[in-house]
Amino acid sequence: QGILERLDAGEIVIGDGGFVFALEKRGYVKAGPWTPEATVEHPEAVRQLHREFLRAGSNVLQTFTFYASEDKLENRGNYVAEKISCNKVNEAACDIARDVANEGDALVAGGVSQTPSYLSCKDKTEVKAAFRKQLEVFMKKDVDFLIAEYFEHVEEAVWAVEVLKESGKPVAATMCIGPEGDMHGVSPGQCAVQLVKAGASIVGVNCHFDPETSVETVRLMKEGLQAAKLKAHLMCQPLAFHTPDCGKQGFIDLPEFPFGLEPRIATRWDIQKYARKAYDIGIRFIGGCCGFEPYHIRAIAEELAPERGFLPEASEKHGNWGDNLSMHTKPWVRARARKEYWENLKPASGRPYCPCMSKPDGWGVTKGAKELMQQKEATTEQQLKELFQKKKF
Amino acid sequence: QGILERLDAGEIVIGDGGFVFALEKRGYVKAGPWTPEATVEHPEAVRQLHREFLRAGSNVLQTFTFYASEDKLENRGNYVAEKISCNKVNEAACDIARDVANEGDALVAGGVSQTPSYLSCKDKTEVKAAFRKQLEVFMKKDVDFLIAEYFEHVEEAVWAVEVLKESGKPVAATMCIGPEGDMHGVSPGQCAVQLVKAGASIVGVNCHFDPETSVETVRLMKEGLQAAKLKAHLMCQPLAFHTPDCGKQGFIDLPEFPFGLEPRIATRWDIQKYARKAYDIGIRFIGGCCGFEPYHIRAIAEELAPERGFLPEASEKHGNWGDNLSMHTKPWVRARARKEYWENLKPASGRPYCPCMSKPDGWGVTKGAKELMQQKEATTEQQLKELFQKKKF
Amino acid sequence: QGILERLDAGEIVIGDGGFVFALEKRGYVKAGPWTPEATVEHPEAVRQLHREFLRAGSNVLQTFTFYASEDKLENRGNYVAEKISCNKVNEAACDIARDVANEGDALVAGGVSQTPSYLSCKDKTEVKAAFRKQLEVFMKKDVDFLIAEYFEHVEEAVWAVEVLKESGKPVAATMCIGPEGDMHGVSPGQCAVQLVKAGASIVGVNCHFDPETSVETVRLMKEGLQAAKLKAHLMCQPLAFHTPDCGKQGFIDLPEFPFGLEPRIATRWDIQKYARKAYDIGIRFIGGCCGFEPYHIRAIAEELAPERGFLPEASEKHGNWGDNLSMHTKPWVRARARKEYWENLKPASGRPYCPCMSKPDGWGVTKGAKELMQQKEATTEQQLKELFQKKKF
Amino acid sequence: QGILERLDAGEIVIGDGGFVFALEKRGYVKAGPWTPEATVEHPEAVRQLHREFLRAGSNVLQTFTFYASEDKLENRGNYVAEKISCNKVNEAACDIARDVANEGDALVAGGVSQTPSYLSCKDKTEVKAAFRKQLEVFMKKDVDFLIAEYFEHVEEAVWAVEVLKESGKPVAATMCIGPEGDMHGVSPGQCAVQLVKAGASIVGVNCHFDPETSVETVRLMKEGLQAAKLKAHLMCQPLAFHTPDCGKQGFIDLPEFPFGLEPRIATRWDIQKYARKAYDIGIRFIGGCCGFEPYHIRAIAEELAPERGFLPEASEKHGNWGDNLSMHTKPWVRARARKEYWENLKPASGRPYCPCMSKPDGWGVTKGAKELMQQKEATTEQQLKELFQKKKF
Repeated sequence: QGILERLDAGEIVIGDGGFVFALEKRGYVKAGPWTPEATVEHPEAVRQLHREFLRAGSNVLQTFTFYASEDKLENRGNYVAEKISCNKVNEAACDIARDVANEGDALVAGGVSQTPSYLSCKDKTEVKAAFRKQLEVFMKKDVDFLIAEYFEHVEEAVWAVEVLKESGKPVAATMCIGPEGDMHGVSPGQCAVQLVKAGASIVGVNCHFDPETSVETVRLMKEGLQAAKLKAHLMCQPLAFHTPDCGKQGFIDLPEFPFGLEPRIATRWDIQKYARKAYDIGIRFIGGCCGFEPYHIRAIAEELAPERGFLPEASEKHGNWGDNLSMHTKPWVRARARKEYWENLKPASGRPYCPCMSKPDGWGVTKGAKELMQQKEATTEQQLKELFQKKKF
Repeated sequence: QGILERLDAGEIVIGDGGFVFALEKRGYVKAGPWTPEATVEHPEAVRQLHREFLRAGSNVLQTFTFYASEDKLENRGNYVAEKISCNKVNEAACDIARDVANEGDALVAGGVSQTPSYLSCKDKTEVKAAFRKQLEVFMKKDVDFLIAEYFEHVEEAVWAVEVLKESGKPVAATMCIGPEGDMHGVSPGQCAVQLVKAGASIVGVNCHFDPETSVETVRLMKEGLQAAKLKAHLMCQPLAFHTPDCGKQGFIDLPEFPFGLEPRIATRWDIQKYARKAYDIGIRFIGGCCGFEPYHIRAIAEELAPERGFLPEASEKHGNWGDNLSMHTKPWVRARARKEYWENLKPASGRPYCPCMSKPDGWGVTKGAKELMQQKEATTEQQLKELFQKKKF
Repeated sequence: QGILERLDAGEIVIGDGGFVFALEKRGYVKAGPWTPEATVEHPEAVRQLHREFLRAGSNVLQTFTFYASEDKLENRGNYVAEKISCNKVNEAACDIARDVANEGDALVAGGVSQTPSYLSCKDKTEVKAAFRKQLEVFMKKDVDFLIAEYFEHVEEAVWAVEVLKESGKPVAATMCIGPEGDMHGVSPGQCAVQLVKAGASIVGVNCHFDPETSVETVRLMKEGLQAAKLKAHLMCQPLAFHTPDCGKQGFIDLPEFPFGLEPRIATRWDIQKYARKAYDIGIRFIGGCCGFEPYHIRAIAEELAPERGFLPEASEKHGNWGDNLSMHTKPWVRARARKEYWENLKPASGRPYCPCMSKPDGWGVTKGAKELMQQKEATTEQQLKELFQKKKF
Repeated sequence: QGILERLDAGEIVIGDGGFVFALEKRGYVKAGPWTPEATVEHPEAVRQLHREFLRAGSNVLQTFTFYASEDKLENRGNYVAEKISCNKVNEAACDIARDVANEGDALVAGGVSQTPSYLSCKDKTEVKAAFRKQLEVFMKKDVDFLIAEYFEHVEEAVWAVEVLKESGKPVAATMCIGPEGDMHGVSPGQCAVQLVKAGASIVGVNCHFDPETSVETVRLMKEGLQAAKLKAHLMCQPLAFHTPDCGKQGFIDLPEFPFGLEPRIATRWDIQKYARKAYDIGIRFIGGCCGFEPYHIRAIAEELAPERGFLPEASEKHGNWGDNLSMHTKPWVRARARKEYWENLKPASGRPYCPCMSKPDGWGVTKGAKELMQQKEATTEQQLKELFQKKKF
């Protein structure tokens, strides 16, 4: 059954997790360029990660084609040890995803994401050409459906959807935005409306914000669609990092990005709460993005097992809310074998010299404004010093 | 070249990371039993993890035989879907490790760890028989050397070393203790002395405590050996979790163990500091245990690259102290492409409702003592209430 | 010169700090009732606190008549050791304030605050009568102007202003609200408009929220007045506690209220930042409420000394941004004798087992809703357990 | 009854709180010099603070003569607006303390503290002369007993005790040290022994460390005395700040000293725990130092009211463990009217951008050592860069 048949029937569809972050930690992706040449260089590593997500409960395996447009690969090409063609990367990604999907009952989704061409202000034709080049591979390899994901500007996302729709396959579209909307100031509700009008059957968000913020953003999209009397399925693939301190541009501006995010990693219990919340507001395509490891995906599948009636394969190696601890020799560890314990735990960071929140960098204070402020401050400071010296009480 | 030839020549030997934690997150190991039946059930997953560590710089691949003694597997047998014999688990572990070791220049180490037999107070003969059973497999598969690891009682560790020495192969021994010593109160220095006298050529600690604490424990071992005029190579394989709030029994007593440890995960930079500190006090076998992912091992290899003269394979996907960020489009992200930035970053947890430290559970207050305290408190409380009611000023 | 002459001339007028909190810590006010019978019982203690604020730079001494309406005093009367009449409390408050004001150049403001009569839904006539009874004392004692403060409902505040206006004296009105508005949902802007229309010459907020939030609320009031083309002077007297985690009802709902607020206390430097921010958005009557000690008021006076051209008396015992540390024997303490140091210090709590933020109590989840949620959760939990038991993968 | 009669009879004696910190916040003492010229300049402010402590339960009023030796006053003389003689300051301090003591049942203790003469390496004769000059005033004014307090070096404390003993009055001696001992490395136990041998009847610690650390230090003193078969009463007057991150020299080295300590201020409940702990290990003279406000002293008196059989005067304005909240209108605030609530509250800081602990400044790394380390680091850094450039895998 295809993605739309499943969603139309009211099924919960579970997405997969974040490839670039997981494979960066495993040694196959370079932070900075974040390109997926590993599909050619180290297919066994990509295959293994797909398998783990499948086993954890993913119903959709996304081809590892993030940032695999030709312009991106060229732009970051100096990072790739040996030049590998865009087509080769995309084809390998499709083959690996399909092989693993066949090991279970999963769909393969071909994915495109934002392009450097758009950011460097090139025109619609050129940007669309980049998407079309990837789409040709997806058609040749006959993926089950398509996802346009990780767009900061709804304009570019619309172009992507338009291209992907040419294929006749179902199209999903997710933006990497928060409740404040896209980088041009378009609200989540308006973004959703534009994407659905362009042909997307499934809309939502991915990456850039934590689960709580992302669910809220999708809720705003839903409101926008309702107001416009449009219908679409909802989708959410957030970070597995806690980012309450993000600004409009998301976690990239946090000082910890990308090499100091560890203390923010969500626990499996955080993800169970996310899955429930997403479900409760009506999202039925529920997955993850950067930071999501296989056990996070399993947490979604376990939380929603009552609704779905079954558990994922990987639950054979996991207990219900920690009940595998019930045989521990220490009584105080046995006492942790229950839902109430893990649900209420406020996990300590073990880092007493670190704060809880950070101020995002780059909040756009222009250099001129900063100098002006400093100048003004210097003046008052000088006056104050003089008053103290004169003891002018 | 064997392990002792390398260490005797002054080489730095890099260990691997933690299998049970990494494979638990990937869906192949069950928390609680923590047994390695995955070597038989899902060999491709174990193989892939070995490969990632090899690529990250590990010079030693430990067979995934943690808790693989017959008594342990039987004891936790009800967790294993289909009964798998102890021998089969151990043999598969050896085969996988050797296959991957042959892909590079690594040694294979057969490992034994503490047994339930010892904890249930069974006798020396029985405990030794359990180790011997595993050793037979290691001999048949001809591993390069042997490690007795994760012992809370030096007495059992000594028995393990004695058995392993029967093989004629070099033996390393690490205890899962902190500066306060083993569970019977034997100091780190005394533990080291006993292990070396029993035949260990390499001694140190693994698991249970964070890098800083573990390096300090090995330093105490070194002092003990010097005082006893004994010589041995030093080894350290700590947690990749920050645990300044641990009690004597280590991270198992922390309320976050094992499903809420995420905020404590070390960054790669934390591990670079650990590697340097370990090297500076004279440790030359430097690896990791629970929580260590491939990128943590790579961090050891990168920190010590100047001393070793080369980088690990996986550094092809990593920059020097974040310098892969230097091409980022946002200037404030480019500003992170330098050592000073990451070295001094105090990463935020993104969890403003959580504390920094926890009180370990189970600090041994007996029930009687607790009741006594409560009783006493209740009395003073009652008296105080009466005074307030009488307003006795 | 009267209050309006000063403000009309563009002067900065500095208010005083919080009496009930300061005198509670000194042992003269009871938390809970928070009534000001100390004016009769311990006038020397009240006088000394007024003196300290005067010395710190206060231009306005508010009579210590908070919660001194007859209905409140009766309502809480059982806490007052010996019954003291409402008039006596109010008269003593006026006398003490005037005595101290005469020691310097300060104005005396008679103050009324929200009444239990209003909260128990009594009618306009009765509530106004309570204010009128206090006003009679203020007229007899000839205070310089009047403040209606600490109102959660603009309706009651308007009634208070209407009564106070009968006197012919200038009237200021502050509400204890945040950016979300009053307890009936009236926005800050609308509150300001209603108060000005009722006759208040000065409007703003006091208590319940931290400086940052309070300045933002006054900014919203200013916007409301501008939109309505009304003019009034702006006033701000916030808490000296950090309360970023407050809900709509302010700090009373925080779990730490009122006996565990210490870690939230603002430093003098926090207050200097507040004073600057308040000034920058156009507030000219700048003071404090609960938590403001004399040194906090001095911080306002010092921050704005360049604009005012003089320092307060108490600055004879204070340096400019810590420069009194420049003679310290330890070089690292001398290094703290500069603005940049204190301005950027992120002070540690010394409490590693405590969090940074709290969830306010009483967020209005009704008991029925809670039970429903729990019931639903229990069902899914039960289903999940059964799935795990059946191992339904 | 004198101090020794009371202690010998087993009575609990409650000290007072910290004058320099409390009066700094009230605007009468200058941080940095910390000298007590306020006794002459603003006697009413000093008198009021004494009164508040008396009312809170203090049995001992210490003359406000901290740092009032002639050499100190001269040394810091430039801070004193008009030159005031040492004798005048000391005499006024005695008069004020006696006046207030007569309002209740308190003893007056004359106090001396460490001198700049000692720190500038002057000789025993000169240092003793400074103490003797103050002692003459104490004899003329006939204080009830004497306290030598705030000594970092036991040698100087012994000299002080020797001088004070010349008077024939009982002498108490407290050092501002932690468990690591005095600045010359003398252990707490040895300090206690030397002080008792010099003639002190009461020994203990004051200032520099938090209550928990200070109680532990006095416990070590007790052990030292027991080992030496000496007897003395024990005394403790710690900070009311949480300082778990202090080094050997106490809170002065913390980056927050002295103007950013607010988040560390102890709650009344923290102090009740301290009073109980101090009592339990046998301390009977229990008071406070810097940071202790009247309500902290009241907390000691309330905690120990069951043992003493009465409450302090100021408890007329305080409930038992918050029971004054039981009449609050909001049910969730009423729920705070109980011991269990306040005892277990982990108060939030409201400062999500601040850490929990700080590293003390001035940890004595010499400039040479630092340069050496930096040099070495620079070398490895350079080598690493070259390896990455050469991609030497």
